[in-house]
Amino acid sequence: MSPDHDRAPRSPAVSRRGLFGAVGAGALAVGGGALAGRISAGAGATGHDGSEPFRGPHQSGIITPAQDRLHFVAFDVHTESRTELIELLETWTVMAERMTAGQEASPGGAVGGGTHQPPGDTGEALDLPAAHLTLTIGFGPTLFTTSGGADRFGIAPRKPRALTELPRFTRDALDPARSGGDIAIQACADDPQVAVHAIRNLARAGFGAVSVRWSQLGFGRTSSTSAAQTTPRNLFGFKDGTRNIKSEDHDAVSRFVWVDPRDDQAWLGGGSYLVARRIQMLIEPWDRTSLHEQQRVIGRSKSTGAPLGATHEFDELDLQSAGPTGPLIDTAAHVRLASAEELGGIQILRRGYNFTDGSDGFGHLDAGLFFIAYCRNPQTQFVPMQHNLARNDALNEYIEHVGSAVFAVPPGPGPGEYWGSTLFAT
Amino acid sequence: MSPDHDRAPRSPAVSRRGLFGAVGAGALAVGGGALAGRISAGAGATGHDGSEPFRGPHQSGIITPAQDRLHFVAFDVHTESRTELIELLETWTVMAERMTAGQEASPGGAVGGGTHQPPGDTGEALDLPAAHLTLTIGFGPTLFTTSGGADRFGIAPRKPRALTELPRFTRDALDPARSGGDIAIQACADDPQVAVHAIRNLARAGFGAVSVRWSQLGFGRTSSTSAAQTTPRNLFGFKDGTRNIKSEDHDAVSRFVWVDPRDDQAWLGGGSYLVARRIQMLIEPWDRTSLHEQQRVIGRSKSTGAPLGATHEFDELDLQSAGPTGPLIDTAAHVRLASAEELGGIQILRRGYNFTDGSDGFGHLDAGLFFIAYCRNPQTQFVPMQHNLARNDALNEYIEHVGSAVFAVPPGPGPGEYWGSTLFAT
Repeated sequence: MSPDHDRAPRSPAVSRRGLFGAVGAGALAVGGGALAGRISAGAGATGHDGSEPFRGPHQSGIITPAQDRLHFVAFDVHTESRTELIELLETWTVMAERMTAGQEASPGGAVGGGTHQPPGDTGEALDLPAAHLTLTIGFGPTLFTTSGGADRFGIAPRKPRALTELPRFTRDALDPARSGGDIAIQACADDPQVAVHAIRNLARAGFGAVSVRWSQLGFGRTSSTSAAQTTPRNLFGFKDGTRNIKSEDHDAVSRFVWVDPRDDQAWLGGGSYLVARRIQMLIEPWDRTSLHEQQRVIGRSKSTGAPLGATHEFDELDLQSAGPTGPLIDTAAHVRLASAEELGGIQILRRGYNFTDGSDGFGHLDAGLFFIAYCRNPQTQFVPMQHNLARNDALNEYIEHVGSAVFAVPPGPGPGEYWGSTLFAT
Repeated sequence: MSPDHDRAPRSPAVSRRGLFGAVGAGALAVGGGALAGRISAGAGATGHDGSEPFRGPHQSGIITPAQDRLHFVAFDVHTESRTELIELLETWTVMAERMTAGQEASPGGAVGGGTHQPPGDTGEALDLPAAHLTLTIGFGPTLFTTSGGADRFGIAPRKPRALTELPRFTRDALDPARSGGDIAIQACADDPQVAVHAIRNLARAGFGAVSVRWSQLGFGRTSSTSAAQTTPRNLFGFKDGTRNIKSEDHDAVSRFVWVDPRDDQAWLGGGSYLVARRIQMLIEPWDRTSLHEQQRVIGRSKSTGAPLGATHEFDELDLQSAGPTGPLIDTAAHVRLASAEELGGIQILRRGYNFTDGSDGFGHLDAGLFFIAYCRNPQTQFVPMQHNLARNDALNEYIEHVGSAVFAVPPGPGPGEYWGSTLFAT
């Protein structure tokens, strides 16, 4: 990103300063007709400059080839003004479109703002490329109806049926401080500083209206979302996501990822649902088990990623044959219990990241997998899959789910639209 | 890294299994004569495969061109056996040399170990290159003498005079859980998974003898240590480390970084001292200030990094001239107070990283700079510099030091030597 000097002249007539008085300093610099003038109709393929499209029928960051790094944030919304919320979404849309294109968060940017105004960008991504940044927004159940039942923004009647809090799964050990949230934004990029910069500037613009409930840095992707990508390894040392839905599989994407407008609420057509789970890995007991046991638990070869009994990573699972001491693939093997074969054909699109966050307070690293899944209906895809895993998975001895959240992900903004505009359209 | 199959045959005569009973499973796979057979005399320049040298007069990871990512760990040592501590250092040396060369942590690796033994490597860096991994060890004051005064390992008489706990600086807000430690290991690499993998495998090998006191992931470097590198930006959006000591400046490195054996304790000759400070950035108030104020506080142009009143990043500081409303560079500007000119010629080698660790619990991102400095004598370099900054720096309104530690960094291991062998030589 380089500073641009094309800041729109401030026009008192269109200044949104008054409206944003409570939304924070960052929003100010976006003002001056920026919304009307800067939203382009542009959409389409990855740019020559390493930028991903921002507009289109679907948000980027879902079937986009998984970038290397993640910064994810969940916000609590404090304003109770529908107008202010919509203004924030409009501001965020302008900023997000700019940042994904490799520009600063707002015109004028990090070296703008003048003597008295703060700069419109925090500056740590100056000189950095777009790095395939995608920003993807989702709305939690509590945005529609608070836990007290309040419809703060007049959108309760538009709450999709599938957007309910996830049920309590066996062995869940959820920390409320790492769960839930009214709005989520997922930033993925190949440079972590670009992802962190984007979230930080969006949080800044929301100051007063929203606050950071929790955030998660993911240092390395654990899934591929394109057939052109190699399968990365999780912190158990296994290739993860071999059977993930790939963006090239249009039928599966259409069937399992994108919400059809006829599914439920028309405003969500072209959108999806995001399920986030912070999965703590108990790496100490895992590291004390033998390769044999690890491969039994997962159901795959650690070396090649091939299903047990097969040769190559992408060979089919053999769930029927017997092995030397029982089924070739254990009845409690993770790969079996998560398989479409076991689940009546259910699939999800995974997009998780490895994390490590200091010490667990007991002398070990606090490490694990920040699981992200996109699905067309979490109640009929993620929930039955997770029930099956939570009850039976041999891996449960080595993991603990400590955070959880679900969000409805609106469709991509069309020309002139803002994030979530279909939800608020009257 | 790819699995290697050259595991040394296990010889009962040289097996260190018994010795490592208390040190943990990971250490087992290193046994079998590995120490004698695998330590090569190799040292020198960066390899064609992106590997950094492990052996030599100085440890790598100090003047090595700063890699992009960091994982840093501080351990508490629980064993009180000198023999066990030395054995752990020997094991770590073998593992560290292997991993920095792009090999797995131990022969046999992630797909070794057999039916009953755990694998010798956790596997998440399989398929990944060396990524310029460096591993750098340091010994804290409490390794020599516990806070209760105990000399657990017979090394109290070898404690360097300069290795004392840092004094309390004005405004310090230190969290004991993020401070101190008996042993530190810094892992730097261009791939975060490679750095995390290295720390995780070393922690694993130490299980029972040491535990993780705290650890810190740094997602982006904030300093350059080579004239060939561009200057990165910190989370205040400013280029950071413009005047850092560069490895090409042999005089400065020799004068300010490497301990001379005649300085104090001969065993530390060729070593250095590492000072770590977790600096929380109060990004919310910072983001509300004007560019003018930000530049006054830092003393540089945010855009170019040039000192105020100058044109180019590497132009000299003009600490004498007057500006429009006072000194050109404010008397409280960070760049002035940290300058060699103000400090009687003192310099340090910085090697810090940006971090972000979730929410601060008050609705903002928990973000900042994990400051790492190497110096020949922290008491005469870092301490006076930090006193000057802590008392006077205009930046103090926007930062808080919440973690602190100091370590003596032994020289690089020579052929056949282990990390810290000069300390334990009798």
